[in-house]
Amino acid sequence: MEHTYAVIMAGGGGTRLWPLSRKETPKQLLPLIGQETLFQSTVARLENLFPPERILVVTVEEQAREMRGQAPQIPNENYLIEPAPRGTASVVGLAAAVLQARDPQAKMAILPSDHFIRNKDLFHYLLKAAFDVADDEYLVTLGITPTAPSTAYGYIQQGESLNGKYRYPTYNVRRFKEKPSEEAARDLLRTGDHSWNSGMFIWRADVIMREIQMQMPALHDALSQIAAAWETNSRDAVLNENWQPLKVETVDYGIMENAARVAVLPAGGLGWSDVGMWSSMFEIMLPDMDGNIATNRSLHLSHETHNTLVYSKDSERLIVTIGVDDMVIVDTGDVVMVCKSDQSQKVKDVVEHLKKHRQEKYL
Amino acid sequence: MEHTYAVIMAGGGGTRLWPLSRKETPKQLLPLIGQETLFQSTVARLENLFPPERILVVTVEEQAREMRGQAPQIPNENYLIEPAPRGTASVVGLAAAVLQARDPQAKMAILPSDHFIRNKDLFHYLLKAAFDVADDEYLVTLGITPTAPSTAYGYIQQGESLNGKYRYPTYNVRRFKEKPSEEAARDLLRTGDHSWNSGMFIWRADVIMREIQMQMPALHDALSQIAAAWETNSRDAVLNENWQPLKVETVDYGIMENAARVAVLPAGGLGWSDVGMWSSMFEIMLPDMDGNIATNRSLHLSHETHNTLVYSKDSERLIVTIGVDDMVIVDTGDVVMVCKSDQSQKVKDVVEHLKKHRQEKYL
Repeated sequence: MEHTYAVIMAGGGGTRLWPLSRKETPKQLLPLIGQETLFQSTVARLENLFPPERILVVTVEEQAREMRGQAPQIPNENYLIEPAPRGTASVVGLAAAVLQARDPQAKMAILPSDHFIRNKDLFHYLLKAAFDVADDEYLVTLGITPTAPSTAYGYIQQGESLNGKYRYPTYNVRRFKEKPSEEAARDLLRTGDHSWNSGMFIWRADVIMREIQMQMPALHDALSQIAAAWETNSRDAVLNENWQPLKVETVDYGIMENAARVAVLPAGGLGWSDVGMWSSMFEIMLPDMDGNIATNRSLHLSHETHNTLVYSKDSERLIVTIGVDDMVIVDTGDVVMVCKSDQSQKVKDVVEHLKKHRQEKYL
Repeated sequence: MEHTYAVIMAGGGGTRLWPLSRKETPKQLLPLIGQETLFQSTVARLENLFPPERILVVTVEEQAREMRGQAPQIPNENYLIEPAPRGTASVVGLAAAVLQARDPQAKMAILPSDHFIRNKDLFHYLLKAAFDVADDEYLVTLGITPTAPSTAYGYIQQGESLNGKYRYPTYNVRRFKEKPSEEAARDLLRTGDHSWNSGMFIWRADVIMREIQMQMPALHDALSQIAAAWETNSRDAVLNENWQPLKVETVDYGIMENAARVAVLPAGGLGWSDVGMWSSMFEIMLPDMDGNIATNRSLHLSHETHNTLVYSKDSERLIVTIGVDDMVIVDTGDVVMVCKSDQSQKVKDVVEHLKKHRQEKYL
């Protein structure tokens, strides 16, 4: 694991866990389960694999202060601040450029800050295996073996096996696919050769920089300017000047889709969830015999209730459910949300409505 | 309407509208819709039919003070205080004994304090018609034409018509029936000759006293003692002494069931509800186009929500519903209840649970 680095992408401000996640407290900064925030869990998951000085965090100014407080073991200079959101391609490029300047042999694992992974040992094993594949100049992605025909994820179709060459089954990537319709998702599941796109990537800094140079030359130029100025007094000015004109692009569509040498390690049993909506909580918390989950059992009184999540935060209110099935109930003190579990992706519509009606206090 | 009196039975402490109704604020003392409490609506409904001095209220000490405040137009001496709950037979007997002492020709309408009646004109018309029937020494009851196979009410089966003798269709009562099973309720509905037992009774004081003498002689003895002492200094002592040993009995089973001369006026279109559980709110409040009811529309944000009641009291919280159908959501500040509408009779089980676990602050 020499020359390996972890890059945590932590700038997002998702709304899909509203009313818990708010502008000031995005998902990754929330203690969703227990005391640890998702960001802290992401950092903790890297223990024994990366020392803190080889963990980088790319985030935005508004969140950096809170993150430094939550993970003080990560050195200050390892927090890279995006001056403005320009998509994951720019984030990845910034990290690669800075790392390459520090260590020309750098290899990096790009990791979202707000995902859940139960099986830490397997995660470590997969990262190590992926770094081996990355040594051979592959852009590597961890695929998640689907457990349901989800329409919430992009899919990766695997091609021929890179047979026996690596310690974990590894495949060329045939195609990246956008979030499918439900029918299409059922078909994809049946093929057996599709994984969910987890957003976790592993590669050498020089390889990804070369790929950026080919596919996104404007970004590459900007990154070169930024890297050259990084250790100088003009860092902020040069970063800003070069960053603002960048166009917003994701790493998936800006780079991966058209890269020649892409590999996937399809992982089952990782206990992975992107915690992308309230119903995801049923994947990451252990329900009782009735399928219910309560974050504070002494505040939930259930009667003929099944498969229902009761999530209380900053609230001492008793929540009583009678004859309730397959629901998510969230109490944040100023808002009570009652949502059918399979409709929880519609939380974002409610947030849009609140924005439109300038209900700032709830955002 | 000479010699006619209204007797409001107001001592109950029902739990079926918990968490809104509590020990300190039983259902009849709550402003369920708008500003008026159910008790105040019951009093207001009697306007232009009974002057305040001919309205009596039978209640318990704990509630009398609040009631006097809510209906100050009713003279103080018209509040009769039960020393302890002994069932509706005793309540009715006390009112009859006191009234008969005041006015030997008294006729009385027994009216629950916590029911809802939309059609006040028809209500007045029916009471007048019922007093005519009562003049002929009938014990009269208002029946409610069923609109659904309810298992929440007792039923009254009508016998032969007292044909043409009265201004409203009036029948001998064949039988009182306890709350049926759902299957039995469907059968009862099909017969066309069953009404719901509304708990509203009309009779002459002397007739009911005679009936009590025959069927409940111990109660009659006690009432005679109490009536004799009513206008003396020993009222409280005599009342207490005679009241405590009484056995608990309802007017339905203690008196009506075995009385010889019982008549029913079956009433449709009264817009009656006993507001006996949360789902009753859909009978008494006007829903919007999606079938939803919100007591405070600015606090309810609904998305793909149907036939759902959102009831907020003492709460400024936003309540958001997504993909919710046929639910009752009640927010009282210290409790949020989420209940499938057709399960709302189970609220009492929750209250039992709270009692058993001594959760006094919620009772």
